[in-house]
Amino acid sequence: MAEQKADEVVTAAFLVIGDEILSGRTKDKNIGFVADYMTSLGIDLKEVRVVLDDKSDIADAVNALRNRYDYVFTSGGIGPTHDDITAESVAAAFDVPLNLDPRAVAILEKHYPPGQFTPARQRMARIPEGAELIQNKVSKAPGFRIGNVHVMAGVPSIMQAMMDAIAPTLRTGTKMLSETVSADLPESRIAERLAAIQDAYPDTLIGSYPKASDGKFTTSIVIRSRDENILKAATEDVARAVAEISG
Amino acid sequence: MAEQKADEVVTAAFLVIGDEILSGRTKDKNIGFVADYMTSLGIDLKEVRVVLDDKSDIADAVNALRNRYDYVFTSGGIGPTHDDITAESVAAAFDVPLNLDPRAVAILEKHYPPGQFTPARQRMARIPEGAELIQNKVSKAPGFRIGNVHVMAGVPSIMQAMMDAIAPTLRTGTKMLSETVSADLPESRIAERLAAIQDAYPDTLIGSYPKASDGKFTTSIVIRSRDENILKAATEDVARAVAEISG
Repeated sequence: MAEQKADEVVTAAFLVIGDEILSGRTKDKNIGFVADYMTSLGIDLKEVRVVLDDKSDIADAVNALRNRYDYVFTSGGIGPTHDDITAESVAAAFDVPLNLDPRAVAILEKHYPPGQFTPARQRMARIPEGAELIQNKVSKAPGFRIGNVHVMAGVPSIMQAMMDAIAPTLRTGTKMLSETVSADLPESRIAERLAAIQDAYPDTLIGSYPKASDGKFTTSIVIRSRDENILKAATEDVARAVAEISG
Repeated sequence: MAEQKADEVVTAAFLVIGDEILSGRTKDKNIGFVADYMTSLGIDLKEVRVVLDDKSDIADAVNALRNRYDYVFTSGGIGPTHDDITAESVAAAFDVPLNLDPRAVAILEKHYPPGQFTPARQRMARIPEGAELIQNKVSKAPGFRIGNVHVMAGVPSIMQAMMDAIAPTLRTGTKMLSETVSADLPESRIAERLAAIQDAYPDTLIGSYPKASDGKFTTSIVIRSRDENILKAATEDVARAVAEISG
């Protein structure tokens, strides 16, 4: 359909950086936030990776993702401590120098009392050459954007503020709309009808999500499309199928 | 140090499969569980990826991860509906046929009332050739292991039961031990001392995790090592540094 082909699709990947997520010590709260945020902007989040605080792991992931998607967002590893190695890893990925950035130095010098802009804090002013700063309203130390890669803090409140600062600069696509139909049925009972509805509406994505509670299975069926009318028609067909099978 | 070199390190990656995580519709609960589980077993979780329900995305991720790590665990996409394509994607990654597996058929035929083992439910008995089944105590439909790849359900209660079934079959390494020191300080004030302690104890991993609440920053310092004595000594040094700087 012509109007479907005109849809603009913008893609993104999210890279979570930090030993603490992979050891289980910290439970990630950023993936769900970024997923919701991208959906609300009209950007398709296509992949997430979580890697260790390891220079070559970070650089390899940044390069793999920036070549594949329109945008890459990272969280974690831009603080003042020795284990914060995201800036140098991203500089390595882009093969550019990492130096004290006069703009970042100015922001942080103003933020700390005189004499308190210590060498550790100066680490947070090291920005890869050619990058733009990303404003940090919460704790001042900026993130940065280089090419299509946006480097943000890992602390959720700071990451979220940085995402708000980035959002107006992003190209966005046609929003993916969604509807949910709840079925008091295990998904295996509705599977054949759903497959037929999916076939009938190729411009939708129909997902079936089972939930177990107290040994009973129920299902949420999520119908997604960038076209409001197609979404409505497919959702009605799903609701009808659920009603008929629930009988 | 000789005893450090004798440590056995076993590595793993976790692959989360599902559009619903990337759209934000479902908030992942499996990454944190698997991270904790691997740490408790003595397996180093090195990487996590989240990919769409897309055959080539899944197969590419499985192949990248299985060649790099000792074990791969996946969650999601093994149910009865059209959007569950993990089994066929993993079969494609290993270039083996995907057929109805007599062992899986036997389990599911017994589970459903006579005549209720429908074509949709038979999808759950399709297992890549050469795979072993993974028991599912919750809802019967099995997962499977092929090579070093363990394919599990996405519903957390089922995934967790499958992990318990897999655990006794896994080779494990020397456990990574950890201690945490809480500091009522922003991490930039302790950064230089931590870097020096990290340098003094190369057989530890020292991580610094800031937390923002009500505009105030505190820090958790996590010291990790496979050697109990080294861990104790490094932790004491960190605690002393925090006390001196707080003092």
